[in-house]
Amino acid sequence: MLEAPGCALAPKQRADAMTAHTLQLIARPVGLPKDSDFALIEAAPREPAAGEITVAVSHLSLDPAMRVWMSDAKSYWPPVVLGEVMRAQGIGRVIASAVPSIPVGALVNGMVGAQSHYIGPAAGFSVLDLDLLKASGVPSPTWTLHALGATGMTAWFGLHDIGRIKPGETVLVSAAAGAVGSIAAQLAKQHGCRVIGVAGGAGKCAWLMDELKVDGAVDYRAGSIGAQISALAPKGIDVYFDNVGGEILDAALARLRRHARIVLCGGISQYNNTERAPGPSNYLAMISARATMQGFVVIDYFDRYKEFALAMGALIAQGKIVAREDIVDGLENFPAALRRLYQSQNLGKQLLKL
Amino acid sequence: MLEAPGCALAPKQRADAMTAHTLQLIARPVGLPKDSDFALIEAAPREPAAGEITVAVSHLSLDPAMRVWMSDAKSYWPPVVLGEVMRAQGIGRVIASAVPSIPVGALVNGMVGAQSHYIGPAAGFSVLDLDLLKASGVPSPTWTLHALGATGMTAWFGLHDIGRIKPGETVLVSAAAGAVGSIAAQLAKQHGCRVIGVAGGAGKCAWLMDELKVDGAVDYRAGSIGAQISALAPKGIDVYFDNVGGEILDAALARLRRHARIVLCGGISQYNNTERAPGPSNYLAMISARATMQGFVVIDYFDRYKEFALAMGALIAQGKIVAREDIVDGLENFPAALRRLYQSQNLGKQLLKL
Repeated sequence: MLEAPGCALAPKQRADAMTAHTLQLIARPVGLPKDSDFALIEAAPREPAAGEITVAVSHLSLDPAMRVWMSDAKSYWPPVVLGEVMRAQGIGRVIASAVPSIPVGALVNGMVGAQSHYIGPAAGFSVLDLDLLKASGVPSPTWTLHALGATGMTAWFGLHDIGRIKPGETVLVSAAAGAVGSIAAQLAKQHGCRVIGVAGGAGKCAWLMDELKVDGAVDYRAGSIGAQISALAPKGIDVYFDNVGGEILDAALARLRRHARIVLCGGISQYNNTERAPGPSNYLAMISARATMQGFVVIDYFDRYKEFALAMGALIAQGKIVAREDIVDGLENFPAALRRLYQSQNLGKQLLKL
Repeated sequence: MLEAPGCALAPKQRADAMTAHTLQLIARPVGLPKDSDFALIEAAPREPAAGEITVAVSHLSLDPAMRVWMSDAKSYWPPVVLGEVMRAQGIGRVIASAVPSIPVGALVNGMVGAQSHYIGPAAGFSVLDLDLLKASGVPSPTWTLHALGATGMTAWFGLHDIGRIKPGETVLVSAAAGAVGSIAAQLAKQHGCRVIGVAGGAGKCAWLMDELKVDGAVDYRAGSIGAQISALAPKGIDVYFDNVGGEILDAALARLRRHARIVLCGGISQYNNTERAPGPSNYLAMISARATMQGFVVIDYFDRYKEFALAMGALIAQGKIVAREDIVDGLENFPAALRRLYQSQNLGKQLLKL
């Protein structure tokens, strides 16, 4: 539909010439999101007002937290309003601008929503410097949607600020073949930790070992999770970076070293529950382990982006970060692409290309 | 059997004249501890060897953690060995001593075990200064088994080091009519917090309001725990001091304020489970609340006793601490006294008088 960032600039489009599509959330999902929870509608284009920009969206970031935003439960952001565009971060090209500092043609990253064209306030958007990104060794501007964006920040601040990882410690990462987990596993390795990744299936586990160079991989589909962790970390776990919850969390709780930290990043195994699911039975092990479990939300760290970007940029420039993109095409496939996350089908960052 | 501390000194007893009884743990309890899990045996007296003392035990501290020590699960202390004396802290009079610094007649506090006479190393025992205690306003040396001992330290360090309570914050305390909970509720009040106590039954709740002067009491036997907490803390909870686990923990998790802290002190509702119990379903609420849950064990703070004793001693001297003792008589009633804790029958500190 639109050119991928990194290609030559597309011919400038005029707002009145475009066909815009918006994906609205029209029902609160019960369990896994269904196609019928969304409606793809043709949107009426308009010129941006003062302070606004029009962005032709090229890629959307698909994130496990989307399932939380779609429900009407209390969370760190208000729920997506029914009948409005589904919330999503993305990148795209500015095709019309009423903001002097953002020229037409600029590549931007921001909360564009699940739609072909974002028309709204420029606040919160950042302009990407494609030349600088290339010079820094960033293979594609889509990396600002994962390794060099909120995904990477989640891993970075989760490990350092919440997990307080130290060289030599044993770090367990769940959903280690996913977007945040794969970055967290690598960052912990780079910091001198012993890293064990948990993923589903032999293929993902092989990727963890061969590409991410973790010290051990646990296949949660292949027998006892606890026994596998014990075999790889006989002295227990210092830090557990949890993206998943459920059985894996329970297995980790039973294997905590003294003063262990559990980084509560997400609980993807729980997001589509239709009934109240049991919590982690083994939580009382945190008492004798003197362990800490802490929840966090990456948006609290957005004002520390530079600190992160410097460190992560250096690792990327040295070729030390592997980031795999799992790309689905077409806005109409947004629901299916989202389901891939909850069905553990993605390897690396799930993106939607428009 | 022996005089209560604070009474006149008993005539000095000689080791060879005493009849000693020891309560052995002879079976790992399944569910609630039964009388038949213990055996009361007559013990052979002996003179203390070098470095040892003989203590005629007057009072034992009964603690919820005992149930954990009785099982063979991994914990902060090794399990009590079957066929050996049940582990217990207590106070008593030294009736024989092979330690120059501990004279016969001294009143001591230490891990005496569930027995009439402790004969063993003096290491870990502290000599109580009865005159100093009285001058400090401590009503009885048994207070070194609760308000001025490990019970009080658990409340103090749990609130300050783990909970990091601040004046003006809303603090929820479960088992607030119990030993640790009743002290925690009062210490939080003294620190300028708004305190809500949870207890079972109208009588205990009245005691919390009338004697401990908490700001609100939740009767967990009287309808929805969550609704009661919400009514008393409509803006949510900053610190939850948890002695109980189960439903109350889940209700608290659903009502956390941002940056809330959960002090994981114990989980008395879980200790006698015979089947794997569900953990706290609502733990994922810790993510959007940016909340922290931290387990701790008071023995880690024993080297900071003075810091605690100064602060707590001052409060006691000012008459600002209410501590109720719930005393059962006779070593043979140890199992029954212990069950009182798990059946929520005790009001204040459960002691056993020998």
